[in-house]
Amino acid sequence: MNYRQADLPVGATPLRNQRGTAPGVRLELSGPPPKVVYAMPGVPHEMYVMFTDEVLPELMRRAGRPAAIVHRVLRTAGMWESAVAEALADEVSRLQASGGNPAIAFLASQGQTRVRITARAATRDEALRLIAPVEEAARAALGLGCYGVDDESLESVVHGLLREHGATVATAESLTGGLLAGRFTDTPGSSATFLGGVVAYATELKHELLGVPSDVLREHGAVSDETAMAMAVGVRERLGATYGLATTGVAGPDLQEGKPAGTLHIGIAGPDGASAHALRLPGDRNLVRTYASVSALDALRRVLLARQAGRG
Amino acid sequence: MNYRQADLPVGATPLRNQRGTAPGVRLELSGPPPKVVYAMPGVPHEMYVMFTDEVLPELMRRAGRPAAIVHRVLRTAGMWESAVAEALADEVSRLQASGGNPAIAFLASQGQTRVRITARAATRDEALRLIAPVEEAARAALGLGCYGVDDESLESVVHGLLREHGATVATAESLTGGLLAGRFTDTPGSSATFLGGVVAYATELKHELLGVPSDVLREHGAVSDETAMAMAVGVRERLGATYGLATTGVAGPDLQEGKPAGTLHIGIAGPDGASAHALRLPGDRNLVRTYASVSALDALRRVLLARQAGRG
Repeated sequence: MNYRQADLPVGATPLRNQRGTAPGVRLELSGPPPKVVYAMPGVPHEMYVMFTDEVLPELMRRAGRPAAIVHRVLRTAGMWESAVAEALADEVSRLQASGGNPAIAFLASQGQTRVRITARAATRDEALRLIAPVEEAARAALGLGCYGVDDESLESVVHGLLREHGATVATAESLTGGLLAGRFTDTPGSSATFLGGVVAYATELKHELLGVPSDVLREHGAVSDETAMAMAVGVRERLGATYGLATTGVAGPDLQEGKPAGTLHIGIAGPDGASAHALRLPGDRNLVRTYASVSALDALRRVLLARQAGRG
Repeated sequence: MNYRQADLPVGATPLRNQRGTAPGVRLELSGPPPKVVYAMPGVPHEMYVMFTDEVLPELMRRAGRPAAIVHRVLRTAGMWESAVAEALADEVSRLQASGGNPAIAFLASQGQTRVRITARAATRDEALRLIAPVEEAARAALGLGCYGVDDESLESVVHGLLREHGATVATAESLTGGLLAGRFTDTPGSSATFLGGVVAYATELKHELLGVPSDVLREHGAVSDETAMAMAVGVRERLGATYGLATTGVAGPDLQEGKPAGTLHIGIAGPDGASAHALRLPGDRNLVRTYASVSALDALRRVLLARQAGRG
């Protein structure tokens, strides 16, 4: 099989594959009109880089230099798509009335909403000049909801804030069951700020591993602000981190302690004490878990920003 | 925004959205020829169910009852696509020589390879009769590599085996950083078999939280079979689980302890003692972490199957 992947049709040249061994083929056919055939692998991540690195630049070259189309993406967290759209409604109306260049689009995915500003112009610089005032107005309207631009991830922004603070974090998870730690460790170099975490899925482990007092569990239940806060305090102390971040809730589909699927409590413990707050998340089990891990990351981001503002 | 989502063009009917509030629209246009326009949301998971539940059945009805096309998917883990293809090469050749019905396709994604057997016939029963002997031959060729069929997930199969054994599991993660626990908790009802886990990302936490002896860490390093085994033993004891499952390795992009990105050590501790083995995984950081969590789940599956066979 692997030998066969190295075979090529007569006259073809290989397309570079930076992600695996699946072959890519480029074959020029004489005209008229002349044609180029590209064959790429079906595995999405292999196809993606091959298309971006090899095929797209050639297609653009062959099409002649196009007029500049420039995108600027503002990334938000902690706001649903309808809240983002509402915050930007005036700006969108204004742009539509004045010809739709730049244009604004909303892209919601995995609990985050991106705001894409697109401008068309003769040159890239001219497109950027069109984007600048729209970006400024959008940032003002989004406030703290906007955490970054273009390819920045929420994870990398939180790691960056922790580094600026000289701080570390540890996680205590129930509802998110490891996904929150998984997000912190997504980023290369995350060991500088993420120490580790505890997944206390069984209720008694919240007591044994994290030191959540038994009477808190008995009086308030495992799904409560009080337990979320005690989990955050416990993991912060036991792992020796600057911040402890905890999730507890109901992923669904079944009720737990009489509370519905989508219930989330986030606890944060840090140098200034501990706090907790509750959210209700929509969607099925998978989405609730994804939204919950995004919400927890975003909650820590807002605490770090508030502390920064308080010191500044 | 939410009110506007309830607006419909004159003459249109709404398409049911079981996953969110984004609107779907169905509009019949008089002919000739008569046409139907469907407008669906851009959010993939909302579009997906709307298409499957509402649009596809109508399209099939309008097209007239088609001849039966039946798929059967065999799911494998612990085998790369080329190994799966090699195991089934004879069966594929035989089917191609005899007209390609049924046909076999290989679908690789996220560290797992699916084998899709497709048959076309006048009726569903006839298609199923064509598939049966091909499935039997494929299962024999794949052996333990085949863990399930159709929509079964590796996670649900492992949970099922644990339930059959009356066993529980706890995870100790370094390289996978929470993703392995995240997979165990993907499945509703997972709390029956998954107790919890520890993400010991910082090396000293492997000692403090999991009791990996300091001299093991010093002599063999954090990325070693010895540490993986000690992590599995530690988490099994501390969380009181039947099995402890551990990952340590190098996600990349940088070397760690002189070992290259893609190095993975899996440790398993259970009633019959502890073991560890090493793998080298391809791909970038994200893929290495995904492959590593699949490999660890699959390793536990194989231990549970071996124990079952030993008792049987």
